[in-house]
Amino acid sequence: MRTLAADLVHHDGKLVEVSGWIHRIRDMGKINFLLLRDRSGIAQLVLEEKPEISLETVVTVKGMVAANEKAPGGYEVQVTEIAVLAPAAPDLPIPVNQDADKLGIEAVLDNRIISLRIPKIRSIFKLQAGIVDYFGEHMRSEGFTEIKSSKLIGSGTEGGTGLFTVEYFDTRVFLAQSPQFYKQAMVSSGMERVFEIGAAYRAEKHETNRHLNEYVSLDVEMGFIESEHDLMDIEVRILKHIFARVKEEHQDVLDLYGADVPEPEATENIPRISHDEAKKIISDRLGRKVFEISPEGERVVCEWAMEEYGIDAVFVHSFPRKKRPFYTYPDGQKTKSFDLLFRGLEITTGGKRINEYGMLLETLPKFGLTEEGLKDYCTIFKYGCPPHGGFAIGLERLTQKILGLSNVKEASLFPRDRKRITP
Amino acid sequence: MRTLAADLVHHDGKLVEVSGWIHRIRDMGKINFLLLRDRSGIAQLVLEEKPEISLETVVTVKGMVAANEKAPGGYEVQVTEIAVLAPAAPDLPIPVNQDADKLGIEAVLDNRIISLRIPKIRSIFKLQAGIVDYFGEHMRSEGFTEIKSSKLIGSGTEGGTGLFTVEYFDTRVFLAQSPQFYKQAMVSSGMERVFEIGAAYRAEKHETNRHLNEYVSLDVEMGFIESEHDLMDIEVRILKHIFARVKEEHQDVLDLYGADVPEPEATENIPRISHDEAKKIISDRLGRKVFEISPEGERVVCEWAMEEYGIDAVFVHSFPRKKRPFYTYPDGQKTKSFDLLFRGLEITTGGKRINEYGMLLETLPKFGLTEEGLKDYCTIFKYGCPPHGGFAIGLERLTQKILGLSNVKEASLFPRDRKRITP
Repeated sequence: MRTLAADLVHHDGKLVEVSGWIHRIRDMGKINFLLLRDRSGIAQLVLEEKPEISLETVVTVKGMVAANEKAPGGYEVQVTEIAVLAPAAPDLPIPVNQDADKLGIEAVLDNRIISLRIPKIRSIFKLQAGIVDYFGEHMRSEGFTEIKSSKLIGSGTEGGTGLFTVEYFDTRVFLAQSPQFYKQAMVSSGMERVFEIGAAYRAEKHETNRHLNEYVSLDVEMGFIESEHDLMDIEVRILKHIFARVKEEHQDVLDLYGADVPEPEATENIPRISHDEAKKIISDRLGRKVFEISPEGERVVCEWAMEEYGIDAVFVHSFPRKKRPFYTYPDGQKTKSFDLLFRGLEITTGGKRINEYGMLLETLPKFGLTEEGLKDYCTIFKYGCPPHGGFAIGLERLTQKILGLSNVKEASLFPRDRKRITP
Repeated sequence: MRTLAADLVHHDGKLVEVSGWIHRIRDMGKINFLLLRDRSGIAQLVLEEKPEISLETVVTVKGMVAANEKAPGGYEVQVTEIAVLAPAAPDLPIPVNQDADKLGIEAVLDNRIISLRIPKIRSIFKLQAGIVDYFGEHMRSEGFTEIKSSKLIGSGTEGGTGLFTVEYFDTRVFLAQSPQFYKQAMVSSGMERVFEIGAAYRAEKHETNRHLNEYVSLDVEMGFIESEHDLMDIEVRILKHIFARVKEEHQDVLDLYGADVPEPEATENIPRISHDEAKKIISDRLGRKVFEISPEGERVVCEWAMEEYGIDAVFVHSFPRKKRPFYTYPDGQKTKSFDLLFRGLEITTGGKRINEYGMLLETLPKFGLTEEGLKDYCTIFKYGCPPHGGFAIGLERLTQKILGLSNVKEASLFPRDRKRITP
């Protein structure tokens, strides 16, 4: 029966069997200390004879548990038997047991198969798995149903740019940029409240620390809303829940990164300002007039929110119509839409959608679209669709910002960018 | 404040506001009954005047709740005010309020946007959302971590056939057939136990009631297993949990389909027979010698299991080596692999994987593969990978078989097949 490293504390003075990877070998002359790594943590092994094995070898070890305050977790295993389950080549391309921060991002990503063995790096994805779980947990608690929509679409709802093309038998389809079409269809079907956790694709030639060509989108869509503020309200509740659960379950990961999540009261305080107000605040603080909210502007307006509201986040609403997709509910020359900026980065785009068939038909030509070209989409609205809206949170961006990672690619297990299609 | 149809029972004699779609209109002369559909169910509305609205119109209604044993749920709303939120065109392409079973599958799928409004059809996806939830619930309870791997891969681990090609900037990549490569990488990274809920793509020209070109795969991979039986054990525990939770939460959907899930004791009883034994049983029962397990054979061997073990399911293990991918752990001319057949259909393929670098290098050329061609994959094993294995459950097939649907496409929200790329 295998015992995990983290459970040695419950086996003081008993014989145990532990299994894992050899993380470190320390030859102290008469005695040898080996650190063994398993999914729960690190166990110290004590051997009199130095075993002829290399780092990363997978072993199963038998021995007696003894207290040792210098050992990780306060207990060690005095080894009586060691069996190699799988040997490891001695030429590790990058070190697994040294300070991960000394590796540049290119080394980390070029050697992804090995760099994920580094506990600090792998811990990003323990926390990320938590975010996925807590997101679903919260959505279900508010009566939302999880959907799984197709990622292969006949045409792009957000226009034809930025789409990857797939050869599909004798025709060509696209990879979905978002489940927009489908989540609106499901609201209108009577499911009313849906969420999806799925891949989204953007064929954009960005080469920045904030873009991925494939990412995981935490999507929400909700019927019978009064206004876009209902959506911001629900996003606040989602984030409060995620932050609280992350703190509860992953304080160890937060500590590794010297990071913390906002307090619930602070999260409730996230200010809501219009796009015009945001530009004014940014202009004032930068000392020059800005006409767009650039990445620098996003940082500046989050700093403002921190000073004024005690939270490094801000909802920016009322974006101009020309900056939003055709399906955004208009409000004069503005729209009932919003972004959420968190710690200087846009992590959400959302808004109320056009739900009235007549308004949709009037809008399409203004965006160079036709009812024929969007026949299935228009069917959603032709037969009665309630007022609704939604938003999406970028999973990797949220992970990045919670942990303070400098590049969003660090928060993607196997990131895809213009040049990176492996491993 | 909106009240849901299912909650009218708690508001007897009170004024409420209900919102939803007009599901049915019944003109009884002096009085009119309208059925209103919302995400919770159906509410009966009573009006003296017949409103000028068509079916599927979205309305908000105010009125008094009164007991009426003939109304759905035993209560109705005596309407004082009705407001149209979104009108519906009168030319519904298929009826929403009639017996769904009278519609052929082509009508259901060609009119997917509308057919999902039919409560019985939509209920499939309430139950399916449950399966996704309960699968994750169980995996986490056994220490598994959820991963999200890339679906864009530089090369196919299972060989180059059956892959969809994606134009990726100046190069070409493929849509992943499974997260095989990545889940093994994550076991080897030290995460040890991982699961993924994600899309899988098969560019196969099937046109059957059991194939989809895009489906949702419930993937599991686990390190430090003793044998492939550990994997079958865990699949039994997963299915027991899913079946129990489905029964607890979705008895209404099971009732709509006249379906039921296997009892826990029966699920524990699923027999495990070799591929050779399965062929013998099928040959005996068909009265002719079979050399493959065809769809007919899958049905026959499940019938045998039902008669002998009281469960319409069977694990078939020890598949011949030439029938399994290169990474399957060999056992002479056989392999340490298995399928799970459930109610006459294969819903799982799995097995122990080769974890020894030397064995992998010996195996590759036998399958026409090279270390150079699978460099990243081989790196997983070069630096110490524990014994491990895994499997995948097809979400749509499991849903289909739980409900007794005749075609797997009915269990996909927006199915993709050779001809179907919309909606």
